[in-house]
Amino acid sequence: MEPIDHVRVRSRDGDLELEREDVLAVEEPLEIRVRPDAKSDSASSFVTTMRTPGSDEELAAGLLFAEGVLDKPSDLKQLQRPTDPRIDPDLRANVLIATLSESAFGRAQKLQRGTVMGSACGVCGKTSIENVIATDQPPLESDLSVSADFLYALPGRLRDQQSIFSKTGGLHAAALFGPDGTIRRIAEDIGRHNATDKLVGASFLERDLPLSDSVLMVSGRAGFEIVQKAYAAGIPIVASVSAPSSLAVELAQTAGLTLVGFLRERRFNVYSNPDRVARP
Amino acid sequence: MEPIDHVRVRSRDGDLELEREDVLAVEEPLEIRVRPDAKSDSASSFVTTMRTPGSDEELAAGLLFAEGVLDKPSDLKQLQRPTDPRIDPDLRANVLIATLSESAFGRAQKLQRGTVMGSACGVCGKTSIENVIATDQPPLESDLSVSADFLYALPGRLRDQQSIFSKTGGLHAAALFGPDGTIRRIAEDIGRHNATDKLVGASFLERDLPLSDSVLMVSGRAGFEIVQKAYAAGIPIVASVSAPSSLAVELAQTAGLTLVGFLRERRFNVYSNPDRVARP
Repeated sequence: MEPIDHVRVRSRDGDLELEREDVLAVEEPLEIRVRPDAKSDSASSFVTTMRTPGSDEELAAGLLFAEGVLDKPSDLKQLQRPTDPRIDPDLRANVLIATLSESAFGRAQKLQRGTVMGSACGVCGKTSIENVIATDQPPLESDLSVSADFLYALPGRLRDQQSIFSKTGGLHAAALFGPDGTIRRIAEDIGRHNATDKLVGASFLERDLPLSDSVLMVSGRAGFEIVQKAYAAGIPIVASVSAPSSLAVELAQTAGLTLVGFLRERRFNVYSNPDRVARP
Repeated sequence: MEPIDHVRVRSRDGDLELEREDVLAVEEPLEIRVRPDAKSDSASSFVTTMRTPGSDEELAAGLLFAEGVLDKPSDLKQLQRPTDPRIDPDLRANVLIATLSESAFGRAQKLQRGTVMGSACGVCGKTSIENVIATDQPPLESDLSVSADFLYALPGRLRDQQSIFSKTGGLHAAALFGPDGTIRRIAEDIGRHNATDKLVGASFLERDLPLSDSVLMVSGRAGFEIVQKAYAAGIPIVASVSAPSSLAVELAQTAGLTLVGFLRERRFNVYSNPDRVARP
């Protein structure tokens, strides 16, 4: 499946009207199933997420990692499409089956039963933050630091690597930058969270975690879940072109993560742990 | 709880740096619990969603309606905060308990058990659309029609009613317009879908459904779920300032809903059922 699709639209401009072709971001569900071993026929549905097709394996791995199902590389034994030839190919393209280690499968089952909190769950912000901090890891202690010029360059570098369609706002983009400011990975998706999951998932699959010397830049806003995903992946600095939410800032403060917002032209705000950004 | 919060930030502009106060959108979880009667102590958790506080009752009603739990006004007997005085007030502010009719509670339980597909679920786009169309209602047949000038006026009217913070991109806004072009309701939230749920929920609570003569305008993009929620509420025309997704267009075509995108200044595209928009 392609990440973009073409449709006929009736396009109006003032008093002019014409029919023309328009480009759309493809949005299709991806169902992630889990099973304890490759011989098991009965993979159970873990989650279904709307996504733009492309890098599905990375998205699935990133989502299972962010939810706490995957902890180390050996937790994911296999990631494949359904092989049953009786299944419609269109349907196969929207399903991935993850074969998990015993402990990872146990964690997935707990999440499926709802006995463990999912990503954005908890009954108050404080509980949400305590869940994330308590279950995952201690606050980040990376000594990565960057200059203001380093940050000023990120939006332009992200745009240079984005697809034309993504630049027009059709897709969200996210990228991982190394300490020298070069792009390590880029991902695009109609879902703001999915682009980050794809980046972290790719890093998981290539055994690049934790990302202690990477900076994450997202094209949209930085909400709670973006910070949570960055924290789980060990990313010490997260930058966005737009506003963070109150809970994203609180989590970033508690998690030892540097959160940069409104990064546009030669401006930005630092909302937490500002010591990783050099002063003038 | 307030919809906005204030934090201290380190603000950088070129080589200048200062500390100042910044305004953030509040993001806090809302847990919606359901129970079969008001005497039952054991309300079970139906869903937790991240939201900006404000119009919580409308959000809860709209979400339960969009998920198919609520069908008619008598399905929702009561909507209240936990009353147990031992519960922390901060926590109470993030929980709403819905007392449901027997049939609505049965539908909620089915959804909780995962035996019925949730909103964005299904293993391919076609299945998603079939689930929505099959379970809810026939395609919309409203004979509402609007002029191009009617549509051109919507973004300005939405902006006039938005809070200052929302105009800066801090929150998503959505509004319902009557056939004369006036705003009937407006809602703001950090979550794109929540603003629409708040509008539909308010209409449900005031027995205004279906919204056969209303136009929904959203400040962001129109994805599958926005169209699904509009369709469930009987809204025949949905306009957005930005792009729709491929699946949103497919659902709108099948559901008999007119989907307008890229509505900016004196331009727009019509992606489905264009006969509700007068030609030049």
